[in-house]
Amino acid sequence: MEMTAFIKETRDAGFKKTKKKVPNELKSDEVFIQVLATSICGTDVHIYKWDQWSQGRIKPPLTVGHEFCGKVLAVGSDVKDVSVGDTVSAETHIICGTCEFCKRGEFHICENTKIIGVDTDGCFAEFARMPAHNLIVNNSNIDPKYLSIQEPLGNAMHTMMHFDIVDKTVAVVGCGPIGLMGVNIAKAVGSKKIIAIEINDYRIKLAKELGAHVVINPLKEDVIKRVMEETDGKGVDVVTEFSGNKTAIEQSFKYIKPGGNMSLLGIVPSNVEIDLSNDIVFKGISIYGVVGRLMFKTWDQVTLMVQSGKLDLEKIVTHTFPLDQMEEAMAVMISGNSGKVVLIP
Amino acid sequence: MEMTAFIKETRDAGFKKTKKKVPNELKSDEVFIQVLATSICGTDVHIYKWDQWSQGRIKPPLTVGHEFCGKVLAVGSDVKDVSVGDTVSAETHIICGTCEFCKRGEFHICENTKIIGVDTDGCFAEFARMPAHNLIVNNSNIDPKYLSIQEPLGNAMHTMMHFDIVDKTVAVVGCGPIGLMGVNIAKAVGSKKIIAIEINDYRIKLAKELGAHVVINPLKEDVIKRVMEETDGKGVDVVTEFSGNKTAIEQSFKYIKPGGNMSLLGIVPSNVEIDLSNDIVFKGISIYGVVGRLMFKTWDQVTLMVQSGKLDLEKIVTHTFPLDQMEEAMAVMISGNSGKVVLIP
Amino acid sequence: MEMTAFIKETRDAGFKKTKKKVPNELKSDEVFIQVLATSICGTDVHIYKWDQWSQGRIKPPLTVGHEFCGKVLAVGSDVKDVSVGDTVSAETHIICGTCEFCKRGEFHICENTKIIGVDTDGCFAEFARMPAHNLIVNNSNIDPKYLSIQEPLGNAMHTMMHFDIVDKTVAVVGCGPIGLMGVNIAKAVGSKKIIAIEINDYRIKLAKELGAHVVINPLKEDVIKRVMEETDGKGVDVVTEFSGNKTAIEQSFKYIKPGGNMSLLGIVPSNVEIDLSNDIVFKGISIYGVVGRLMFKTWDQVTLMVQSGKLDLEKIVTHTFPLDQMEEAMAVMISGNSGKVVLIP
Amino acid sequence: MEMTAFIKETRDAGFKKTKKKVPNELKSDEVFIQVLATSICGTDVHIYKWDQWSQGRIKPPLTVGHEFCGKVLAVGSDVKDVSVGDTVSAETHIICGTCEFCKRGEFHICENTKIIGVDTDGCFAEFARMPAHNLIVNNSNIDPKYLSIQEPLGNAMHTMMHFDIVDKTVAVVGCGPIGLMGVNIAKAVGSKKIIAIEINDYRIKLAKELGAHVVINPLKEDVIKRVMEETDGKGVDVVTEFSGNKTAIEQSFKYIKPGGNMSLLGIVPSNVEIDLSNDIVFKGISIYGVVGRLMFKTWDQVTLMVQSGKLDLEKIVTHTFPLDQMEEAMAVMISGNSGKVVLIP
Repeated sequence: MEMTAFIKETRDAGFKKTKKKVPNELKSDEVFIQVLATSICGTDVHIYKWDQWSQGRIKPPLTVGHEFCGKVLAVGSDVKDVSVGDTVSAETHIICGTCEFCKRGEFHICENTKIIGVDTDGCFAEFARMPAHNLIVNNSNIDPKYLSIQEPLGNAMHTMMHFDIVDKTVAVVGCGPIGLMGVNIAKAVGSKKIIAIEINDYRIKLAKELGAHVVINPLKEDVIKRVMEETDGKGVDVVTEFSGNKTAIEQSFKYIKPGGNMSLLGIVPSNVEIDLSNDIVFKGISIYGVVGRLMFKTWDQVTLMVQSGKLDLEKIVTHTFPLDQMEEAMAVMISGNSGKVVLIP
Repeated sequence: MEMTAFIKETRDAGFKKTKKKVPNELKSDEVFIQVLATSICGTDVHIYKWDQWSQGRIKPPLTVGHEFCGKVLAVGSDVKDVSVGDTVSAETHIICGTCEFCKRGEFHICENTKIIGVDTDGCFAEFARMPAHNLIVNNSNIDPKYLSIQEPLGNAMHTMMHFDIVDKTVAVVGCGPIGLMGVNIAKAVGSKKIIAIEINDYRIKLAKELGAHVVINPLKEDVIKRVMEETDGKGVDVVTEFSGNKTAIEQSFKYIKPGGNMSLLGIVPSNVEIDLSNDIVFKGISIYGVVGRLMFKTWDQVTLMVQSGKLDLEKIVTHTFPLDQMEEAMAVMISGNSGKVVLIP
Repeated sequence: MEMTAFIKETRDAGFKKTKKKVPNELKSDEVFIQVLATSICGTDVHIYKWDQWSQGRIKPPLTVGHEFCGKVLAVGSDVKDVSVGDTVSAETHIICGTCEFCKRGEFHICENTKIIGVDTDGCFAEFARMPAHNLIVNNSNIDPKYLSIQEPLGNAMHTMMHFDIVDKTVAVVGCGPIGLMGVNIAKAVGSKKIIAIEINDYRIKLAKELGAHVVINPLKEDVIKRVMEETDGKGVDVVTEFSGNKTAIEQSFKYIKPGGNMSLLGIVPSNVEIDLSNDIVFKGISIYGVVGRLMFKTWDQVTLMVQSGKLDLEKIVTHTFPLDQMEEAMAVMISGNSGKVVLIP
Repeated sequence: MEMTAFIKETRDAGFKKTKKKVPNELKSDEVFIQVLATSICGTDVHIYKWDQWSQGRIKPPLTVGHEFCGKVLAVGSDVKDVSVGDTVSAETHIICGTCEFCKRGEFHICENTKIIGVDTDGCFAEFARMPAHNLIVNNSNIDPKYLSIQEPLGNAMHTMMHFDIVDKTVAVVGCGPIGLMGVNIAKAVGSKKIIAIEINDYRIKLAKELGAHVVINPLKEDVIKRVMEETDGKGVDVVTEFSGNKTAIEQSFKYIKPGGNMSLLGIVPSNVEIDLSNDIVFKGISIYGVVGRLMFKTWDQVTLMVQSGKLDLEKIVTHTFPLDQMEEAMAVMISGNSGKVVLIP
């Protein structure tokens, strides 16, 4: 039996649409899934473009994609917590369970992590085979296109929730899809003032709709001056960084309050220059690097918040395409004029 | 009545020995103290040299010095917790008590902090007047020369104790007097492996005597390579930074373990270049800027540890001079071939 | 100049309405206030009834009352952070600032605490004199009757926020005025499921309106059985105890989840019997005793949440009387058929 | 091939020495071990005596015993982190890995925990078969009799380290083998004052030798009065409870300091009566129930401290017997005149 799948076939740019054998021989701890919806991650774009990082990491041929919602069609002989008929999504980090980090429950920094759709076959396909341990059983009443984006929502959640943001002033730096989710989470839990920073007009508008009290465009305004004004000259309590932009990061150290907290998720390609003495030491701030999602604490937060109805998921998912229109979907993602883009097989 | 005091008289290098009126008119919340011992801080050296920072901050004439142990000779009318005859030392940050940080108990980042010996008259003198709120009553059985160094010991304690170092591998970067104290604290609380990093031979020897299991000299060895070897290729659990050296700080980001913790105390004059993505985000580490001492939690830790006998204070205080020999004492401090240098009035 | 005030004049039940000299001689750190609204606390009811606790603590004559919102008419010579014309409320614990707890910033357990309206003259009067340190400056656009209840709202906030309740199942045990506030706070921050436990029909109705997903009446239902059903047999993540009822507390230990958290505010007159082994040790739970409010972290949370509009204050304040109708107001409080009861001078 | 093993053969008191087939058919995730040393736990005594708890839990026939040190003779096909020749000990909680607690890394409260030697065959035998996931690789230079007691040392460690005890005053209530370990850990990490409470003269003497600054015998002294005297009328910062004695626990609530912390490990057969209002609420204390060991954070702490040489293990292990002398060993355990009792196969 065959299925449609998008694969990285050779060491070149682009994805190839192909017919592939359905992966129905299951290991004892695996689950066979019909993909109902799958969304595009920035990482997929990197692999599509075949950038330097991809060239070092990806070993074609590989079925790409890792964010999805699917229906369970079969389970391996040792699988207990997932049943045929369940609607599931997946944590995309496959962990070893035996390194020092896993044995302490710090699964997110497992030293042997493999990533679905990067190191193992993924979900840009009609069907997929996944390890049962990674699966989250969803509330099947929710539209699969919203359930498919829970993995990146987990990145946003981990970033927003590491430090306390309830009733705090929060800067959300960079409003790509994950930053937009961050804005929406801050609104849902009740931050005092959400200050978003973004240059793309499409995303500025979305950030406002999703809960930002203020959106600052660095191309048009002096960011540091404006943040200080918006905080009565005090600076923000918490910086959450999604942009991966060197200048934006360097500026954020100037408008964070003494005793403030900073969570870093965005990936910046070059070194960042920090005035360590004045901006970290004398301010007495704390900084946290965000890797993946806390397994599975972050997923508990994500699934509960998705079910709570407090997020504006219909605004976060801005585009939906049939899986076949991968090229069109990729073009929208690359344009920057989108929130999350979802594909339906 | 007159007393000997060392003052910054004019906007120039050096301290002037002078005779000054004894400051015996007390405000209701002040305490009058006979200085028994006073130690020299790196900040005093900056003021002595009249560097750029000093030129911007110090307003002569000013009696310098802030680390001391003294005997209480008189107390103001509202003072309750300090009595005549007590042996005392002082927290050197005079706080406002009313800013948002003070009202939350985050006294160490008070936005109106004044510093003894920097913004108000200090203790390089026979007598001094201090706010009662800042005083710690010492165990009078301990030699005043050891009690005088408790304030910088508080900086070391705050740096070492913010993250858990019991049974952890710890890098102590820079073994000036405060770094040396850091080494000794790690030994006292029981770190698994203490790796000190220092270039000065005198201080390398001291670091070993104070508890470092390994001391690496960056002038002679590849620091990153060596730290990785000493930690079975894992890196250290905790970095404590006392050096203020750009290269040393940049290297420490390379040998910290995923999930690791970094406390920063050293003041570096230039910007530091950090590979944020690989060294903070992907490693999932936490960083904390250390300002002063937690009032008065850090002091509780310091006074108890000094009384416990677990520190090798006789090795940390390497030189003692009469107060009159200020010039000689300064020369030793500036040479780098010392631990703490104490003056006896 | 004279003012109306309600005082405990003699060691008997009841309050006496009296004319009293306006307290306009201010100490340097005091503020003179016109009371705009004042609300009745359970403690006021104890003093009114002259119960055993009151007989041991209160020293008549005393102006009672401690929850209020007022307007500043004059300030003492050292007062900086409060100005004439400000609308203020007060933290009611007057702390010493010098005990070991205060010096560590643990103001809420100051060992020399005095309480406004209990140990010093209070606010059931037209005017009052308060220490500036205790005052919070309010947003003057909000109705004083809502601002007057911020102190007990602080008790509720401290109880609800010590452990994480965002996206958790929470039992609110006892829905007197402070428990009702607890329900409303859980709704505002987004608890997953709020299970209130209350016997009074008036308060059961209010609890539902303020956000409880489920209200269980122990007189009509088996509480433990019902809580377990409502949580899929798992038990609640967090118990917040406001009832001071022995049976209710003992039951809560049975329906708390392993690894769960319990905050205790309610005052129970007798000993409570706990199966320590099965209900604390084997469950691995954590318990926290709530005293007052964290100064002033809890107040930051309270004032921000009041301003956010996320609380249903108009439902929490169920009755408003002129100050002169103290007897009628007390009767309503004692009936149990009320939320907060506010008096307007 | 046969081996000597001690088993609970029938539903009666005592253990039966027997010859049993060596369990050498390994599952893919199991390890085959030669037992080098095994120590007796209080739980083993309960099973030996066939008390009420045992009658409800144990299903004979069962090889008893769970604390051990052994040598790996063979490993299953999927085992990676343990090798033939390794010296190992075992975490005794076999967890499911898939319940909500396991998936969050809270392994110690796994809802499907099985216990070695209670629910599965144990180690009072010449050989044993254990799940690889549960094994800790030891430093083989350390005497196996000390390595065999690391599991209960983990209980002591978990109890002592949940709250900060460095430089604090600590009460260790009950000095059976695990309480004695608690005293020794407090000494090793540097508590300010260790106050042990114990009635047995043999153990009082041991507690002093292991680091208690004060040992109070409740049969001879007023415990509350004495603790208050030893703490300048303040009470202790931290209570660690190992006794399971109702009176001792009730007393500890009277001498804990406001803001203090209490860890509970001891199992008390009856309910405990607590004055919740005065002793938890008004004091603002925190309480934590200790279940097992944090996997595997507590084991990291244990193995590092055992290797550090900071514990007086030669004083904690008071008796060593050949495995064959089980009856004599049990008699010593039951007498109360012992620390840990070790058996050598």
